[in-house]
Amino acid sequence: MEGDLTLQLRIFDLNCWAIRYLSKRRQERVQLIGDMLRRERFDLVLLQEVWSEQDYSDLKARLGGCYPFSHYFRSGVIGSGLCVFSRFPILDTLLYQYSLNGYPYMLQHGDWFCGKSVGLVVIKISGIVFNVYVTHLHAEYCREKDAYLPHRLVQAWELAQFIRHTSKAADVVLLGGDLNMHPEDVGIRLLRGWTGLRDAFAEATRFEGCEDGCTLIPNNCFTVKTELLPFPLGIRIDYILYKAISSFTVKCEELKTTTGTAPGMDIPFSDHEAVMATLHIRRQGQAAGATLGTAEPMLADVVTEARTEVGVGLRAAQRQRYSTGRMAVLALLLLLLQAVAALGALAGLAAGQPFPKLSFSLLAFLAIGVLLLATGLHLFHTIEVKMLQGTEEQMRMAMRALQERP
Amino acid sequence: MEGDLTLQLRIFDLNCWAIRYLSKRRQERVQLIGDMLRRERFDLVLLQEVWSEQDYSDLKARLGGCYPFSHYFRSGVIGSGLCVFSRFPILDTLLYQYSLNGYPYMLQHGDWFCGKSVGLVVIKISGIVFNVYVTHLHAEYCREKDAYLPHRLVQAWELAQFIRHTSKAADVVLLGGDLNMHPEDVGIRLLRGWTGLRDAFAEATRFEGCEDGCTLIPNNCFTVKTELLPFPLGIRIDYILYKAISSFTVKCEELKTTTGTAPGMDIPFSDHEAVMATLHIRRQGQAAGATLGTAEPMLADVVTEARTEVGVGLRAAQRQRYSTGRMAVLALLLLLLQAVAALGALAGLAAGQPFPKLSFSLLAFLAIGVLLLATGLHLFHTIEVKMLQGTEEQMRMAMRALQERP
Repeated sequence: MEGDLTLQLRIFDLNCWAIRYLSKRRQERVQLIGDMLRRERFDLVLLQEVWSEQDYSDLKARLGGCYPFSHYFRSGVIGSGLCVFSRFPILDTLLYQYSLNGYPYMLQHGDWFCGKSVGLVVIKISGIVFNVYVTHLHAEYCREKDAYLPHRLVQAWELAQFIRHTSKAADVVLLGGDLNMHPEDVGIRLLRGWTGLRDAFAEATRFEGCEDGCTLIPNNCFTVKTELLPFPLGIRIDYILYKAISSFTVKCEELKTTTGTAPGMDIPFSDHEAVMATLHIRRQGQAAGATLGTAEPMLADVVTEARTEVGVGLRAAQRQRYSTGRMAVLALLLLLLQAVAALGALAGLAAGQPFPKLSFSLLAFLAIGVLLLATGLHLFHTIEVKMLQGTEEQMRMAMRALQERP
Repeated sequence: MEGDLTLQLRIFDLNCWAIRYLSKRRQERVQLIGDMLRRERFDLVLLQEVWSEQDYSDLKARLGGCYPFSHYFRSGVIGSGLCVFSRFPILDTLLYQYSLNGYPYMLQHGDWFCGKSVGLVVIKISGIVFNVYVTHLHAEYCREKDAYLPHRLVQAWELAQFIRHTSKAADVVLLGGDLNMHPEDVGIRLLRGWTGLRDAFAEATRFEGCEDGCTLIPNNCFTVKTELLPFPLGIRIDYILYKAISSFTVKCEELKTTTGTAPGMDIPFSDHEAVMATLHIRRQGQAAGATLGTAEPMLADVVTEARTEVGVGLRAAQRQRYSTGRMAVLALLLLLLQAVAALGALAGLAAGQPFPKLSFSLLAFLAIGVLLLATGLHLFHTIEVKMLQGTEEQMRMAMRALQERP
């Protein structure tokens, strides 16, 4: 790109729902995704929920010809699920694992085991430095009583902070991923406001796809219909966001989504719809400088709102920490009592009575079990409290900085 | 600072050894540290092992007059122990928690519980942007057979990557902390080579303090003398490192360490010696650009050496993952066997014989305990394997990038 030329960049983003043993028709769908990516020849492909490294390796082998560069981000027990395929060399990578990500004992939700993260790859195209971020935030299982909202807000905040701190030398910032937030949710307003990122759907000159840009729709045969009952059109939780930092402008010429089934197929690629953006990047005369996205008084309101929610989570975590600590102390007391009773029996204090060995041992094992479990949970909630406090404190600092600006 | 003026910056770094209930004469020493900091009026104070938030709050209250700005980094069960006091406003902060940090079951070492991290604070002085990093890496408990070396190398690599990615808009980068590595160790060569940071001790025009700049010395009444037997002078593991990124030069005019006791006192501030640097920062005509510190062919050797050590750790972690997995399977088999036996007894197959309830229950509880423990450890080592693989992969990418440079 020289002088007034415009660089066109085609980006593909999809939550692939490729969980081994659990996701329906996984291998078939991964193959379909691979075929389509090879056919369409995007410039950048950002995938989430590729949990199996084998699936990544298969895709890599399949796509090597048209996407010679790729990166898989490892984290957590299962992996981060995040990977990037690129037509252009990946110069550098960095992974940031969110400090909070649900609870290990919520096995049915399983987010904790995934080590949810944001991955960064640095790419240079025609001399323009792109910082490309791919992420997947904690799922929302119940919108009415969303117990994970504080964790997702901590993640949104950490994501925004990570982008701000790592993108200072980039010309263009791109973020793709399943944010698990509706467009009007406080987390996405916080992310956009605090980073200045713009929503490709809202900015697109042309749009083609599901109504309102929804990416989780009732028409997709893999979605759980009951969960979407309050939203007849579906919901939009997968995004491509972007901004130009230095002397460049970015414009979204076209945004597309898939619409329930893969083109020419009888099944969709995933339970999510894919988002595809065509961006035009143009060098402009003077540096625009890093700007915040939302007008600042509004941004202050958003930070306040987010901080209130984090505070709610903090108080819940403090209560959990207290009750698990109390449980551990009670179990310890029970064990001590038992030890005294056993010593008494040994010393012959109750020589006439038979000692109830079986129930005694069962009780002791139960107490040990409760003690270990409660201690583990207490430690976990202690970490949770610390991270929520840390985020609240950082948001307080941000508020002060916003207020002090001339 | 305008034109040719030089900015002088005085920095203080200390691992405070302030562990509640465990560190000797903690409160007295924290008070001494506070008094000295108030007297000496440094520009920047970087502290580690301030594990108790109460100690931080006390210091903050005490130092508010001369260091109006401060930040405490929260992480892990106990906290990160990291904090910063500054004469200049702290504009922004970010915490990055290392992905590996020892083992939760190594209670006697306890590093896992601390959530070892690197903290970043951004400060602007006379228009110069400083990215100031404070960190504390995993301790070395046995130099001959250092089981934590792979974890410390992962931390050194993540530290280097974090600094590289977050400091691109900074004019000057400063890093202070207890790196738990000797100056010639592969981890510190990797950190310096990959970031271009320079060692204040090696660069100082004037030096005053312990011989060879040691910061853990036999003369300090709190150090464990037997651990220092192979090093009669002590060891140097606390550092102040720096570099200028854009059109600035940094020079270390003076470096000092404390020498066993606090000036005018009968006890030291900590079991570590403090490191104090006076830096001169000067604007120079043309931008120096981001440079790597070590000549590149040498750097490639360092990355290879580090990668080999990470590989050793990876194989050890894979063995652990395998043996804990096998243990879990065995415990599960035992439980199944017991279930079959119990069903048999219920069905009256062994009606003539008395059923050994007590030993049966004890065995079942034991099997459940082993199953839970082995599963937990298996998950932990699975994460460890993933992170070591991820680091090895990143180092491989770095090697390739180094080799491909013209």
